[in-house]
Amino acid sequence: MDFQVTAQDPGTRARTGRLTLHRGVVQTPAFLPVGTQATVKGLTPRLLREAGAQMLLANAYHLMLRPGEDLVRSLGGVSAFMGWHGPVLTDSGGYQVFSLADRREVSDEGVRFRSHLDGTEIALTPERAVGVQQALGADVIMALDECPPAGADRAHVAAACARTTRWARRSVAAHGDGAQALFPIVQGGVYADLRRESAAALVDLDAPGYAIGGVSVGEGEAKMREVVDLTAPLLPADRPRYLMGVGRPADLCMAMAAGVDLFDCVLPTRNGRNGQALTARGPVNLRNRVHRGSDLPIDETCDCYACRTFSRGYLRHLFLAGEMLASILTSVHNVRFLIALTERARAAIRSGRFAAFAADAAAGDRAEAG
Amino acid sequence: MDFQVTAQDPGTRARTGRLTLHRGVVQTPAFLPVGTQATVKGLTPRLLREAGAQMLLANAYHLMLRPGEDLVRSLGGVSAFMGWHGPVLTDSGGYQVFSLADRREVSDEGVRFRSHLDGTEIALTPERAVGVQQALGADVIMALDECPPAGADRAHVAAACARTTRWARRSVAAHGDGAQALFPIVQGGVYADLRRESAAALVDLDAPGYAIGGVSVGEGEAKMREVVDLTAPLLPADRPRYLMGVGRPADLCMAMAAGVDLFDCVLPTRNGRNGQALTARGPVNLRNRVHRGSDLPIDETCDCYACRTFSRGYLRHLFLAGEMLASILTSVHNVRFLIALTERARAAIRSGRFAAFAADAAAGDRAEAG
Repeated sequence: MDFQVTAQDPGTRARTGRLTLHRGVVQTPAFLPVGTQATVKGLTPRLLREAGAQMLLANAYHLMLRPGEDLVRSLGGVSAFMGWHGPVLTDSGGYQVFSLADRREVSDEGVRFRSHLDGTEIALTPERAVGVQQALGADVIMALDECPPAGADRAHVAAACARTTRWARRSVAAHGDGAQALFPIVQGGVYADLRRESAAALVDLDAPGYAIGGVSVGEGEAKMREVVDLTAPLLPADRPRYLMGVGRPADLCMAMAAGVDLFDCVLPTRNGRNGQALTARGPVNLRNRVHRGSDLPIDETCDCYACRTFSRGYLRHLFLAGEMLASILTSVHNVRFLIALTERARAAIRSGRFAAFAADAAAGDRAEAG
Repeated sequence: MDFQVTAQDPGTRARTGRLTLHRGVVQTPAFLPVGTQATVKGLTPRLLREAGAQMLLANAYHLMLRPGEDLVRSLGGVSAFMGWHGPVLTDSGGYQVFSLADRREVSDEGVRFRSHLDGTEIALTPERAVGVQQALGADVIMALDECPPAGADRAHVAAACARTTRWARRSVAAHGDGAQALFPIVQGGVYADLRRESAAALVDLDAPGYAIGGVSVGEGEAKMREVVDLTAPLLPADRPRYLMGVGRPADLCMAMAAGVDLFDCVLPTRNGRNGQALTARGPVNLRNRVHRGSDLPIDETCDCYACRTFSRGYLRHLFLAGEMLASILTSVHNVRFLIALTERARAAIRSGRFAAFAADAAAGDRAEAG
C-alpha cells in the first residue's frame, strides 16, 4: 500500500490523496459504498463503477457467519467473489459483534457471542479477526475493536479503549508482514483525553493507516463533530484516515475539513430502500404525493443512471407498488450523490476553496427539499 | 403496424417475421418480458436491452388501478414512463379481472369488480379497456376477453367465448382507426369446436394480429399443446400470432413449431426470484447445497451479464442471505435464456432445421440439471 497526499487545502485541513492498493488506485477523499454481505444491496458492480465507486466495504462478521471465510477464499476472495475485482476494505467485525450479536462476553482474550443468524457460539479474538480477513482477502483490513454504546460511562469507555489498544497490538503481531494493509481503530467515545490516549498508543504501532471508530453511534451530531475534529489531526498526516460509518453529506464535509480521507456508510442504500433520496437541496421523500405527476429527475444536477432515465413520478409509482426497481434506482442515485460530493470536494481542495464548497454543501444538506 | 413473414421452416409451421411498430422493429419469434406494473421486476431497461429484449408487456389492469392511466399518459405513456422507449404491448385486463379481482359480476355490458388493492368498485367494458390502453399508449393493445378458469364446463366456456367475440367487435368499433394495433383474443378453453368458432369469428374482424388466450391456466401441458397446435393455424398466416402467458422452453418450441410469433410470461422473473434458473440442461435451483462452492456460472453456454460475471456459489450465497441482487441476477439470466432461445430458433428456422432444434431444446428442458 502506498499513500501520497497530492493537494492540501489552504483554509482547512482537507487534502486530496492517492491511495495505491493491490487491486487499484483510490483517489481520496473517497466514499466507500457498503456491501455488508458481499453485495451493495440491489446494485450490480457495473452500476457501482458507473456511479464512480473506487473501493467497497464488506463485512468480516457477516461473511464469517455466512457463507464462511473459507468459501469466500475458495471462490477467489471477497473482491472476485462479488464480481467487483477492485479494491475492498473489510471491517473486523468489532462493531457488529457489539451491535448485532446475542449474549456477548468480552474478556481480554476476545469476545464470545452467539450468531444473530442461528445462535451458534463463536469466539472472536484479534488473531481470529485477522485470520478471517486474510481469508477474505480484502486490500485493507481492520483490527478488532471494542465499541461501547453511546451513553457508556467513562470507566466503561476507558476500559474498552485500553482493550482496543491491546487488541490492536496483537492484531499487528498476528498480521506480521502480510500483504494486506491493517488499520487500527481509534476509540475513546466522546472523551477527548481518551481519544488522545487511544490515538497516541495506536500511532506508536506505525500502521499504514488509521480509522476513527465509535462515532455516529447515537452520541449526537455536535459531539460527533467534536470527536472527529479532535481526533483526525492526531493521526499521521502521511497516512490515510478513515472515518467509519459516517455518511450524511454535511458530516462528510466537516470530516473532510478535519483531514479525513475515507468514508463508508449504509445511508445511501438504506435510505434509498426507504424512498429517501439525497439532493443538492436536501433529502427528498419519493413517496410523497407532491411527486405524483412530476416529470423531474430526483436531482436535476445529478448525472446518475436514475436521474438520466427516470422521473420522480415513475419512482413514486414504483415505491407505492412495492417494486424492487424503486430501491435499486434510488440507491444508485444516493451512492452517486455521495461519490460526486467527494469528487467535487477533491476539485475544491485542489483549487484551494474547500471551506466555501463545504459551507455550500452543508447548507444544502440542512434544507428539506420535500 | 406492418408484419412480414421473412422465412418459413420446411418441416414445421415455424416462421420468422419482421414486425414493424411505432417504437421499433421486432424480429419474431420473440419473447416479451413482463413488466406488470410498468417494471420488469428488478431489471433496469438497460439490462433488458442487453438481454436482447425487443418488446415488453405491461398490464392495463394493474396500471389502471395504480398509478392510473391518466398519470401514465401525462408522463409520456407507458414506454417512456418506464424508461424503455421501445415497443410495448398492453394486456387488456381481462385475465387479471378474472384471476385477481374480488366480487366479479360479468354481464354483456362488461365486468364490474372490486380492486384487489383497495376494494374500489370498478366497471371495465370493452370500450373502457380500449380507452385505458389508448391512454397508456402501447404499440399493441388487446381486446377485453372473458377468461373462464380451467375446469369450467362447456356451457360456461361457450358463453364466455361468445361474449369475448361480441366484446372484440365492440373493441374494434371503439378503437376506430386508432394508431395502435388492436389484437382480439381467441378463447374456447380446451374445446376444439369452440376454439374453431372463436377463431373464425375473430378472423372476420380482419385485425392486424391475433392472440391465443385461456391457455396455461391449469389445463395441463398436453391439453395446452393440443389447443395451440389446433388454434395457431386457424389464424391468418400473414398476421402475427401471440400466445399469451406461455414461457416454458419446451412449450415455446412447440408453439413456434405451430406458427406462433410472440410470447410473454412471468416465468423468467418469478422463477428467478425463487432461485430457479433455466439452463440448457434443465432448471437449476440455485439454493441447493450442491452449488455451495461452485465457481461455474449458471449456464456455461449463456452470454448474459450474470453468467459472464458471477458464480453459482456467489448466487447461492445471495439467495441464502436474502439479498435483492440474487433475484436481479437470476432474472437477468432467465430472461436472456428465453430470448436467446428465440434467437436460436430464428436461426434454425432460416436454415430450415427447426424440428431438430426444437427437439433438442425440449429434451434439455425436460431434464433436471439439479
